[in-house]
Amino acid sequence: MSEDYKELTIETLSTRLGDINTLKARLGDDPNLWTSNEVGDGNLNLVFIVQGPKGKLIVKQALPYVRVVGESWPLTLKRAFFEHEALVRQAERTNNLVPEVYYFNQKQAILVMQFMQPHVILRHSLKDGIKHKNLAHDMGIFCAQTLFRGSSYSLTAPAFKADLAIFSDNVALCNITEDLVFTDPYYDADSNNINSPALDAVVSDLRKDVELKIAVQILKAKFFTQNETLLHGDLHTGSIMVTQNETSIIDPEFATYGPIGFDVGMLLANFWMAYFAQQGHQTTDDNRDDYRKWILKIVEKIWISFTQEFSNLWQTERNGILFEDKLFKDQGHQNASDEALTQLLTTIWQDAIGFAGAEMIRRTIGLAHIMEIDTIEDIKARANVEKNCIAMGRKLITQSKKFENIDNINQFIVKIEKDSKL
Amino acid sequence: MSEDYKELTIETLSTRLGDINTLKARLGDDPNLWTSNEVGDGNLNLVFIVQGPKGKLIVKQALPYVRVVGESWPLTLKRAFFEHEALVRQAERTNNLVPEVYYFNQKQAILVMQFMQPHVILRHSLKDGIKHKNLAHDMGIFCAQTLFRGSSYSLTAPAFKADLAIFSDNVALCNITEDLVFTDPYYDADSNNINSPALDAVVSDLRKDVELKIAVQILKAKFFTQNETLLHGDLHTGSIMVTQNETSIIDPEFATYGPIGFDVGMLLANFWMAYFAQQGHQTTDDNRDDYRKWILKIVEKIWISFTQEFSNLWQTERNGILFEDKLFKDQGHQNASDEALTQLLTTIWQDAIGFAGAEMIRRTIGLAHIMEIDTIEDIKARANVEKNCIAMGRKLITQSKKFENIDNINQFIVKIEKDSKL
Repeated sequence: MSEDYKELTIETLSTRLGDINTLKARLGDDPNLWTSNEVGDGNLNLVFIVQGPKGKLIVKQALPYVRVVGESWPLTLKRAFFEHEALVRQAERTNNLVPEVYYFNQKQAILVMQFMQPHVILRHSLKDGIKHKNLAHDMGIFCAQTLFRGSSYSLTAPAFKADLAIFSDNVALCNITEDLVFTDPYYDADSNNINSPALDAVVSDLRKDVELKIAVQILKAKFFTQNETLLHGDLHTGSIMVTQNETSIIDPEFATYGPIGFDVGMLLANFWMAYFAQQGHQTTDDNRDDYRKWILKIVEKIWISFTQEFSNLWQTERNGILFEDKLFKDQGHQNASDEALTQLLTTIWQDAIGFAGAEMIRRTIGLAHIMEIDTIEDIKARANVEKNCIAMGRKLITQSKKFENIDNINQFIVKIEKDSKL
Repeated sequence: MSEDYKELTIETLSTRLGDINTLKARLGDDPNLWTSNEVGDGNLNLVFIVQGPKGKLIVKQALPYVRVVGESWPLTLKRAFFEHEALVRQAERTNNLVPEVYYFNQKQAILVMQFMQPHVILRHSLKDGIKHKNLAHDMGIFCAQTLFRGSSYSLTAPAFKADLAIFSDNVALCNITEDLVFTDPYYDADSNNINSPALDAVVSDLRKDVELKIAVQILKAKFFTQNETLLHGDLHTGSIMVTQNETSIIDPEFATYGPIGFDVGMLLANFWMAYFAQQGHQTTDDNRDDYRKWILKIVEKIWISFTQEFSNLWQTERNGILFEDKLFKDQGHQNASDEALTQLLTTIWQDAIGFAGAEMIRRTIGLAHIMEIDTIEDIKARANVEKNCIAMGRKLITQSKKFENIDNINQFIVKIEKDSKL
């Protein structure tokens, strides 16, 4: 495996990886008995499920280009390095919420990791109306633990800045976010994917909204310059694998330092879009009303789980250079750090609302859509769902401070949906 | 010069640097004819003026400890590297506003540069009531050009992030700022230098102000995490050299990525402190009224010069990934980028006001004071000036949004001074 980079194939995989002891230990000693399937359905990489007599595992290899587009869109192999670095940190910072890494080869951009079974991608459940038990709790914990423990509230300055320097080099994948989330939907970019002509008027109207476009650029600047913590960077419901009781977060190759609210906002937005999408999947037998309520409840519980765990870590692991005890508690101002926490959570919430709005717009008219909406067969129903997403996204971005809590959001969502049905 | 690091002395300097052609070209070919004086009056480094038959130059060498404290406070030699990197960038980004660099040796932490003559440190002029002609214009230009051209508004993402990674390692000097500016004054730190007992009640009151302490920690977080541009990092009036018409900015070893408002705020604060200090230097022959007005005018002109040049660069050099023309101008929204600029300048102003407040407090009760105040002989007059600085600092920090412009500030300053004389 010391040769130059070469794409794996199902034919070459067991020969090329057959010498690696950690793989043998999990698959069985004789690589001739390993079989592989290429199952990558994402936009970027090769993904193999490898099976041997003793078990299964995942082999993920970055390609030197964007898979969904082809060699005309080159993309650095170093993204595998960032995914590995992020997975290692997430594993340290959370408990069992990411797949275990078994092996990494930077030159070949190969990452070998735990095969999550019988997990499915959450997005499929959200389309099919399937509930998951610990999802909200786990996602709140994941966000709180990774975002707090990677931040300057937790890390020492030298540790934080050394890590910042490492992830600063993940320019190529951040650039995708900067373009696809914060730029392309707001002008006539080739990359956009618009349900035309149904959405033409809505898109035209959106691009005339100067206040919105300025606000999006301020969000982009925040994403780019506010290096508050190590983000997952692509925390949508396609990056979450679930069983009835378990949750596993995958694909952190977009990992970068950024504002805490970014991951939180992306995550919540994907549930809100899934909520609107129910309109396109409901049938006379299955009106999805109960499932709609479940989705809103999930969002509410994620936020509660997040703030509870974040507050807990704030009280017990605030070992960074900010809000030190010597300035507050040691001077008899015990309540001051609670007050500071409240202010911080308010900022995170407001940031999250803004980023959620950007996510809802870009997932509707930008390059990458969400499966729950794209699979709506009735074109009119789909356009209606998309319009709801855009209407909500715009409001979240331009009026983020008016949504003070989940209740405000929920009332607004119900109103949007009601209006759109008239 | 390839040997291990060794401190220069006036005896060894010409032998050790005598082979360097760029030095010979400026001093004369025979190092035996070079003479040196050690003139470092700063807190950290050795500084030599070296004279030869053909001219003079400055040799600055970092020590492996903080000079003013001694070997008990070790400090990385790498700060010379950051100073050099910053000077090179500032020279590229401004026109003749920093000393020219002739030679750099990282291992020896030696930086050889232009000897500014007949320049003096601005602080001395501010104490003695001496005016300088292009000062405000030059400082506004320096701030606008370095802060805009080092930012994500100007640089491409790869260039910006590569630079961010380099300066992330300037942890040690940032740590000094984090401690001395944002932490130590707010608890009973050994490093503090308080005019006691005259200021004891004021300091005690300040440390009981929970709202203030939280606001200062939010400023600290902003300094630490908001990596908007490459800062000078120590832009006070002791880092500015002046002649009647010329301005030169020195000592950027604290260079780091941070918020644009940090440099601007530090700079303005030092003028406001110098304003209050006049009270301690006025005599019956020289009431300093005219000079006081001149100082306030300088601040006003710095802000005007800064905003004019920043606006000019915003219109002509906005080549980064933010507020791109394709989102605004190309869609017929010419005015939108002006509107965005106005919002940005408002944010910079508010940040600057907050950082200015932190600077005024730390320069009064923290480790490093300002000479204009420390040289006030009448202890009561000095305490009065110091109280003014603290009163203003507190208000700037907790009510930064109430000061919408220079006029608000000026009215407030005049009121503070009037009240303190009663």
